[in-house]
Amino acid sequence: MFQSFDVTARPDAAPPRVARLRDWMAAQGLDAFIVPRADAHQGEYVAPCDERMAYISGFTGSAGFVIVLRDRAAVFTDGRYTVQVRAQTDPDTFETVNWPVTGLADWLPGALPTGGRVGFDPMLHPVSQIEGLRALEAFTFVACQNGVDAIWDARPPAPAAAMTAYPEALAGKSALEKRTEIAANLKALGVDAALTNQPEAIAWLLNIRGGDIARTPVPQCFAVLHGDASVDLFCAPEKAAPVTEQLGPDIRITPPGDMGRLLRGLAKRVGYDPATCPVALAEMLANGQRITDPFALPRAIKTDAEIAATTEAHLRDGAAMVRFLRWLDQDRTPETTEIDVVTALEGFRRDTNYLRDISFETIAGTGPNGAIVHYRVNRETNRTLDTDSVILVDSGGQYEDGTTDITRTVPLGNPPVQIRHAFTRVLQGMIAVSRTRFPIGVAGAHLDVLARAPLWMEHRDYDHGTGHGVGVYLGVHDGPARISRISQVPLEPGMILSNEPGYYREGEFGIRIENLIVVESAPRPETGDDRDMLHFMTLTQVPIDRRLIELDLLSREERAWLDAYHAGVLAKVGPRVDGADRAWLAAMCAPL
Amino acid sequence: MFQSFDVTARPDAAPPRVARLRDWMAAQGLDAFIVPRADAHQGEYVAPCDERMAYISGFTGSAGFVIVLRDRAAVFTDGRYTVQVRAQTDPDTFETVNWPVTGLADWLPGALPTGGRVGFDPMLHPVSQIEGLRALEAFTFVACQNGVDAIWDARPPAPAAAMTAYPEALAGKSALEKRTEIAANLKALGVDAALTNQPEAIAWLLNIRGGDIARTPVPQCFAVLHGDASVDLFCAPEKAAPVTEQLGPDIRITPPGDMGRLLRGLAKRVGYDPATCPVALAEMLANGQRITDPFALPRAIKTDAEIAATTEAHLRDGAAMVRFLRWLDQDRTPETTEIDVVTALEGFRRDTNYLRDISFETIAGTGPNGAIVHYRVNRETNRTLDTDSVILVDSGGQYEDGTTDITRTVPLGNPPVQIRHAFTRVLQGMIAVSRTRFPIGVAGAHLDVLARAPLWMEHRDYDHGTGHGVGVYLGVHDGPARISRISQVPLEPGMILSNEPGYYREGEFGIRIENLIVVESAPRPETGDDRDMLHFMTLTQVPIDRRLIELDLLSREERAWLDAYHAGVLAKVGPRVDGADRAWLAAMCAPL
Repeated sequence: MFQSFDVTARPDAAPPRVARLRDWMAAQGLDAFIVPRADAHQGEYVAPCDERMAYISGFTGSAGFVIVLRDRAAVFTDGRYTVQVRAQTDPDTFETVNWPVTGLADWLPGALPTGGRVGFDPMLHPVSQIEGLRALEAFTFVACQNGVDAIWDARPPAPAAAMTAYPEALAGKSALEKRTEIAANLKALGVDAALTNQPEAIAWLLNIRGGDIARTPVPQCFAVLHGDASVDLFCAPEKAAPVTEQLGPDIRITPPGDMGRLLRGLAKRVGYDPATCPVALAEMLANGQRITDPFALPRAIKTDAEIAATTEAHLRDGAAMVRFLRWLDQDRTPETTEIDVVTALEGFRRDTNYLRDISFETIAGTGPNGAIVHYRVNRETNRTLDTDSVILVDSGGQYEDGTTDITRTVPLGNPPVQIRHAFTRVLQGMIAVSRTRFPIGVAGAHLDVLARAPLWMEHRDYDHGTGHGVGVYLGVHDGPARISRISQVPLEPGMILSNEPGYYREGEFGIRIENLIVVESAPRPETGDDRDMLHFMTLTQVPIDRRLIELDLLSREERAWLDAYHAGVLAKVGPRVDGADRAWLAAMCAPL
Repeated sequence: MFQSFDVTARPDAAPPRVARLRDWMAAQGLDAFIVPRADAHQGEYVAPCDERMAYISGFTGSAGFVIVLRDRAAVFTDGRYTVQVRAQTDPDTFETVNWPVTGLADWLPGALPTGGRVGFDPMLHPVSQIEGLRALEAFTFVACQNGVDAIWDARPPAPAAAMTAYPEALAGKSALEKRTEIAANLKALGVDAALTNQPEAIAWLLNIRGGDIARTPVPQCFAVLHGDASVDLFCAPEKAAPVTEQLGPDIRITPPGDMGRLLRGLAKRVGYDPATCPVALAEMLANGQRITDPFALPRAIKTDAEIAATTEAHLRDGAAMVRFLRWLDQDRTPETTEIDVVTALEGFRRDTNYLRDISFETIAGTGPNGAIVHYRVNRETNRTLDTDSVILVDSGGQYEDGTTDITRTVPLGNPPVQIRHAFTRVLQGMIAVSRTRFPIGVAGAHLDVLARAPLWMEHRDYDHGTGHGVGVYLGVHDGPARISRISQVPLEPGMILSNEPGYYREGEFGIRIENLIVVESAPRPETGDDRDMLHFMTLTQVPIDRRLIELDLLSREERAWLDAYHAGVLAKVGPRVDGADRAWLAAMCAPL
């Protein structure tokens, strides 16, 4: 299994470690030390050797940081983890702070006397973050070695998975083309080179993949792209050995230990994104310049080959989902638990023989667990599936040809009308986004209302974004464009986004319906003008359970959309399943 | 009549004036002089004495500027005026430039040799505009006296209409309250006083009105609000004489000629909005600070009294519109022209005995003239009403209790189905905005799609905003919030906006349907959660012509909205009309 259900809370392991860290701090003349969850790559997943926040505190959430003072310590994390952080940390050692509602800049003046020296590892904090802290003139922020690493006896080794070649047939563009295109943009940004610490960017740029972290198939590395389109790639040479020939002579490989020497030797203007670039690296540049990340938008615009590839991955994944949903619908027993569901689903994906990893930890919440938006089952929380309720399942796979992310909410027994009513409002929002057309220039911020309006009319809402960007055998969360009130990035053909409104009633149930969609040019309709419009093609091909729909609420257009969607699912996925799965699919896809 | 139909194009008057201006320039050692359309108050309407751009070029459009060089001259204006500017200006004297697509910064380097000295009147250009120009290092921008004023022999005198008191019963808040509230915000903005050149702001703040410019009932003046809530009001004392007692001792009146001396004498931090404050005034401040305009948002949030007042104004105006629309529908003849329509409409508004002015020049476009978005009829363009088409009429009134702005598109004979189809799509967009609910924090940018989506689905659109803010017996365009893709100002209860999607087919017809709406808290629906939501109350109470609706296209909810709207119109406006008007209204408001 990729997914684990181990209970990872070991709050009692932390206090001795905190004591050792305080000894180290005293020896360094530090009054405090910051331990972020982030690693040097500022990504969503970290390798075991970078799980410092968990090591020092016991808290395993995916965002936040710990600060240890001589006589206090606090875990800062967001609202998703309010319950988890208290369960996982020793209350006599750690306070918990609701962040970023309260930031370190708000908290520190009350906790540390003026003149306090706060240590931090400059490879783990981006430039803009440290600037924000250094605005607190009462304290001195001292770049130093990593105190947790200094005391961590059995620290796991850094990952060293081999890099692999990503086929150009799937990428649709050679690495040379990508390097050349982005290098050509550098002058307009006012620089002669660009430094990046983002493995997704480097993997996409060089048409390689890796295996250093869970869920995202990328190699941990750093890189500088030069104006001549050559690249300095910083990684352990043995990781790159399998792809050296493919990379070619334009890619010069340097071990991470020599990265500092090479960066310090660059006289040219080197651009970096202050939001993600470690302050340690930025300060090595003689002529560093802040720029917007030049890799983000280009990789968000998928090539035709990438779209064709991920389309195939979605059909494969759709067939696995159909088998899973039929099993859940017809073969579950009164003893079936959430762990059973997650295990079965991963099994169906593995059975395709193409699954390389899951794209994220599956969320499977029955009854009230469905209302916990980021719920992940473990052996302690595991719950038998409810009756007369729903289960929400949000999952996805990594395949060489694509990354999937899908949510379906399915009935257990006979859910009450309030659940079906809410499901229908969520569905209407998802359909509105799915079928809309819009001109170039429109951003996710301008479309977000389409997903929410049916809920807003009833004074309901959901407290998460409507959609995030998605990579193609890269990160499941990838890309600058989002469907959210604050995302001003114009939507362009080739962008893949999720479309995932939901509704959650605490203590009762949760509903989410998610498809992945790709922006493309809309063909001119018969009745219409000449203006160019874009629309979304839906990648996900999995039935939506009609037993949860209050049909009377649907408009003509919504029914037509759903019937057409289901007819497409049956036509495309039907041939890939057989027997009972095929029959179940046909019934699920019949016209309303 | 407030509205005039005179043909104002006199291109031949301009060249001799340009020659005299060039003589003046030579005497000043200037290579160029800028003549903006704007006055010192940067408003939408200017007094005759400030119609410098029209004086020097013949062009009477409401936006843009002229630049006169020794051997060239150009009129810069926007797409609304492409045809008009060519018709009104002598082609041998003036080039025309499509602005702001091409700005002065783009054009000047090709027209003026390096080192050229460009003169401008510093009272007519805001700080940010001159900064943008001064970034062109090849030229010197010289603040100087106004060259047009220097040559304009029969220049009209400055307006000097008496100020009047605005009743507190209509304002809902005393001037003292308003001054105190905004003065209290100044510290948070980092200043001890705020300078404004905006008559709407000053009129609102002091509960006064005036009559210096057409269409907007405000006195031209300047003001400084101090931290102690006192105000220095700069205007001709005779203008303020009728309200001196009401203004009270906290308001110190200074003639405009002494404004410079007073401003130069202020040592305190004085805030100004660089987008609107003349550079001449900003440079008089020893301690000037850029701030966001502190008056804009407060006056956008109307008091309950203002909303009650404008509600009554809208019922009065609605009755006038009903009488007009019945006359247009039943009493027009084959000879009726656009001028007849505009004249009749103003007559019906005047007959209320409450009309103080029209709020803007009525747009009345039959057939193809309807497709010219800012069409205003004059004796040359006047057209007999078409048959088997539509006429678009956009108009409004200024009443002491409110400002109205309404567009109705009405059938002439039997318009073809393509017109009715487009009308219905426009109507669906307007209804979607009218009936939506949304949480606090949502801005016009997030709702704009609701108005456009029915058109976008057919690859159609309209090239203007969906809605602008509106004052209460102030400007018909007023307020920072808009319904448009670029407006990020959150919508708050009390804001009045227009809701005016449209559709235009060049050479054929134009459609627009406009109501004014006010943001308010939405009452909890029976089926729903506890989240607070806002919605729009529609102020405009005038029937929408069902003969243009393709009923089959409407959803259940859209029909219900329209029936409820019409029932409300009949209930509220019915009692204010009689005889044939009453019968016509009842028929127009019958359920679909």
